[in-house]
Amino acid sequence: MTHATDVTTLMADIGTAARAVAPVLAAAPSAQKEQALHAAAGAMRASVAQILAANARDMAEGAAQGLTPASLDRLRLDATRVEGIAAAVELVATLPDPVGRELARWQRPNGLDIARVAVPLGVIGIIYESRPNVTADAGALCLKSGNAAILRGGSECLHSSLALHGCLVQGLEAAGLPAQAIQLVPTTDRAAVGAMLGMSDFIDVIVPRGGKSLVARVQADARVPVLAHLDGNCHVYVDAEADLEMARSVVLNAKLRRTGVCGAAETLLVDQAVAHSHLAPLVKALLEAGCAVRGDAAAQAVDARVSPVTPEDWDTEYQDAVIAVGLVEGVEGAMNHIARHGSHHTDAIITGNAATAERFLAGVDSAIVLVNASTQFADGGEFGFGAEIGIATGRLHARGPVGPEQLTTFKYVVRGVGQTRP
Amino acid sequence: MTHATDVTTLMADIGTAARAVAPVLAAAPSAQKEQALHAAAGAMRASVAQILAANARDMAEGAAQGLTPASLDRLRLDATRVEGIAAAVELVATLPDPVGRELARWQRPNGLDIARVAVPLGVIGIIYESRPNVTADAGALCLKSGNAAILRGGSECLHSSLALHGCLVQGLEAAGLPAQAIQLVPTTDRAAVGAMLGMSDFIDVIVPRGGKSLVARVQADARVPVLAHLDGNCHVYVDAEADLEMARSVVLNAKLRRTGVCGAAETLLVDQAVAHSHLAPLVKALLEAGCAVRGDAAAQAVDARVSPVTPEDWDTEYQDAVIAVGLVEGVEGAMNHIARHGSHHTDAIITGNAATAERFLAGVDSAIVLVNASTQFADGGEFGFGAEIGIATGRLHARGPVGPEQLTTFKYVVRGVGQTRP
Repeated sequence: MTHATDVTTLMADIGTAARAVAPVLAAAPSAQKEQALHAAAGAMRASVAQILAANARDMAEGAAQGLTPASLDRLRLDATRVEGIAAAVELVATLPDPVGRELARWQRPNGLDIARVAVPLGVIGIIYESRPNVTADAGALCLKSGNAAILRGGSECLHSSLALHGCLVQGLEAAGLPAQAIQLVPTTDRAAVGAMLGMSDFIDVIVPRGGKSLVARVQADARVPVLAHLDGNCHVYVDAEADLEMARSVVLNAKLRRTGVCGAAETLLVDQAVAHSHLAPLVKALLEAGCAVRGDAAAQAVDARVSPVTPEDWDTEYQDAVIAVGLVEGVEGAMNHIARHGSHHTDAIITGNAATAERFLAGVDSAIVLVNASTQFADGGEFGFGAEIGIATGRLHARGPVGPEQLTTFKYVVRGVGQTRP
Repeated sequence: MTHATDVTTLMADIGTAARAVAPVLAAAPSAQKEQALHAAAGAMRASVAQILAANARDMAEGAAQGLTPASLDRLRLDATRVEGIAAAVELVATLPDPVGRELARWQRPNGLDIARVAVPLGVIGIIYESRPNVTADAGALCLKSGNAAILRGGSECLHSSLALHGCLVQGLEAAGLPAQAIQLVPTTDRAAVGAMLGMSDFIDVIVPRGGKSLVARVQADARVPVLAHLDGNCHVYVDAEADLEMARSVVLNAKLRRTGVCGAAETLLVDQAVAHSHLAPLVKALLEAGCAVRGDAAAQAVDARVSPVTPEDWDTEYQDAVIAVGLVEGVEGAMNHIARHGSHHTDAIITGNAATAERFLAGVDSAIVLVNASTQFADGGEFGFGAEIGIATGRLHARGPVGPEQLTTFKYVVRGVGQTRP
């Protein structure tokens, strides 16, 4: 048997098992799923030593392979981080069960009673990179939403993921749920990813979690529907009727609270009508906070530290303490700029004018549009979803934060008394 | 310039134009869209002679090319059918506008006000075969839901489609909407379909309407998300506690009202506990109504006209007056059979026992599950959607009848007073 056949067989076995247990999960009562999640969190707390030992092995191998310090930091677990992972699993347990919600119900003139009822998607494949916590987060969210999960983590975090996955399985078994409800692909062979992308018989949707190259590969090659986040080129537009203090506070937060998150602002647009009053304070505040500024002529005129913005800058997601700054002609100019350069992720306007705000909210075609609030609120937790498996930038099914509800679909339940169609 | 380049350029121009007008449609007020649809219906009524002349040309070419009588019948228009098409467009005009609906709204503890608001999908590509009415139906539904449409009809109906499309454009222009809101690909070159399937920059979702080979090709080749209906292998399960008269009436309707629709039943399952009382009357009623019956041993014993069912029969969508009939062990047996052989489309139980009904409704994983009603209700119009562009058998985004609401997505509108994220 060749090596490729090994992986193909392994993945087919995993897919078959996931498909087989999906109906059990779909029918699992809320209390049983909650019990499994609480038990899994308990197992993580009881297994801190083993989890950290597994993580130490990943860290040693990663260091030997020359992982960057940033990658090693993403990979590193300590007792506090393990407790955070367990607490996140417990939080998912306490969320409302998204399965079985009656989304709509109506009667037809012929007496048919039609209900649209939330049901799980089925089997969800998660492909992720070096953060071991995704193993627990994604597994917990899939279980909460009644889906079977196939987790394929980065090779760097395999041992940590196996340890955390073992705790999830303990939770499942404690609650009488099948261990195959959450499966972790137990190989670092990259062929496993290719196999998952083609498993349309076994996997209903794939969620990639990681860098742009991973997500782009999944989107290009998947024969299975994908819920993915590609770019987060987010804008803050400061309108002529913006309160300057509010603008300063929101811009600094949107850009700098965390620069590596997808909701971080990458471009600041300022209404040219208030260039004289608003541009310099905003640019200086960014510079003083340690942010590099690449600006148009007006922004460059503010401060010698502002470097010239290039056409590419407007399309760049820096994910760093860098921002592009330019003037636009009012809200229409801002909307045109965002339509040309934005990524349909998250964009904000700062204005005191309600009509201008509504124009922006209606006209900007992004998953999340905000008025007078930071783009860094683009997060399932901040939306009240309790947790998220990612932020979707596609248009179908889920858009924006993908929480437990977005991991369900629906079916129509029709109740009659013998009706036939004329 | 080569021929392939011609088609590529043509399709890129069409895609660019659609993308350009999509924001205009997304922002179009309900009244303007309604006006366009009413004006289009008026134009169809005023152009009956031209539409029928165009159709006569299609019919003559189709006959010369040896189209089957069934295909010619699908293609044929007469004054009554044109009036039906115009009336269908008017009906779409009167439906509620699905754009701008507030799907949910809540407040966060930090005061952020979050609303989930329905917005159009963007640009919808429709690929269909020889029914010219799809030109009008699909164009009208896309316009109603604020989407730009790219229609690619079958080559057999090109002239009829061009004539109907001309009326849609008259309607758009009468209402001051861009003519490019509904574009018809003006070539029968099959390369245009291939181009559409790869136009992920220009098309947000593709809806194939036609036979299984068309749909399968679209699903296999599309690099754009697809809302498609593949198989409709629908079941009726007659439970031990079914009223026999109701069962007979529903089974006959589900199988024979129209045999070519996707909601037509293809398999009858009877609880073995009532084989003695229910099987013979149901089989005989089907036979007497002109339906061929392929049955298991018990069904064959009922009547000499019952032929043996083969394993393939259970997986076959006959789309004809043929049905597979077999006994199962109660509702669990029926659910197992449907899980193994069904296509997740539409399945029904006939029973007087409410608990058994709920067990079936919860446990059968199909887009539509019914109790005591005919599977032929699987239709957007019967659901009260007013119209549908098709029935989706996928799990993501839309499941079941795809009406105007299912042609929208949503965005999150967040209103703040300067909030920043801690």
